[in-house]
Amino acid sequence: MAGRSYPGDTTALRTRGASLRRLVTVTDARGSLTAGQVGEQLPFVPKRVFFVYQVPPGRTRGGHGHRDLHEFIICQRGRCTVVLDDGANRDEVLLNRPDVGLHVPPLTWTTLREFSADALLVVAASEVYRPEDYIHDYQEFLGLAAAQADRPS
Amino acid sequence: MAGRSYPGDTTALRTRGASLRRLVTVTDARGSLTAGQVGEQLPFVPKRVFFVYQVPPGRTRGGHGHRDLHEFIICQRGRCTVVLDDGANRDEVLLNRPDVGLHVPPLTWTTLREFSADALLVVAASEVYRPEDYIHDYQEFLGLAAAQADRPS
Repeated sequence: MAGRSYPGDTTALRTRGASLRRLVTVTDARGSLTAGQVGEQLPFVPKRVFFVYQVPPGRTRGGHGHRDLHEFIICQRGRCTVVLDDGANRDEVLLNRPDVGLHVPPLTWTTLREFSADALLVVAASEVYRPEDYIHDYQEFLGLAAAQADRPS
Repeated sequence: MAGRSYPGDTTALRTRGASLRRLVTVTDARGSLTAGQVGEQLPFVPKRVFFVYQVPPGRTRGGHGHRDLHEFIICQRGRCTVVLDDGANRDEVLLNRPDVGLHVPPLTWTTLREFSADALLVVAASEVYRPEDYIHDYQEFLGLAAAQADRPS
């Protein structure tokens, strides 16, 4: 079955700056190809790509924020729930399809949970790995997020 | 079982400019994370990321070259064989592990075949999609590749 879904679907979430974005899929006799690119679905140029997989049942990942890093999270297989929190607003997003990406901007406290056994996350990040970009303390995060919220968006 | 494999493993192939590169994997009680980033494992800044999946048994993909595009191909799940050809040299590469990426430089005629039913390719590309970057005619490709081979590498 041939099919193509078009880009342009962006759904803003309650969390400041976060959105769900539909990727482009082309399916033909040779299988399926799903793509996202800079300037369209992908709102930044990635410097790092990583996979998260083989998460044991009941385990939670994330539980931190980033000072400057943008992430774009695709659940290519299986499902998981991503909880976003900007200090004032919150979203719980079920990711369970390979053609949807979740844009998580900086200063978003992010927790990933309820991974299915087969879940595979593909994440594009706007910067290389820098430990000092992580915010591990929730109270510190709230202070930074409040200062950010006072700025014009 | 906790484990970490380190970067720095790059295996040059016979095909001009092509190489296999080991990604970094961190495995702990929360599962596995495998990463590649610009300036280390990833030899270019990606502008497009795509997935190839649900390839029916016996189907071949690729069968073209690119004028300027670099690709970095990871077989995150399952396996497939990638045939690379620079007009003078050739490689057949079995991709069957999530922590190895194949760097395919421009002017490489690339064919993908022998996909397992569960195969998932994750591909990072150095440019957004441009139909005019594709070389679909093998004779034209050979001419361009021969001109390239005459230049200092």
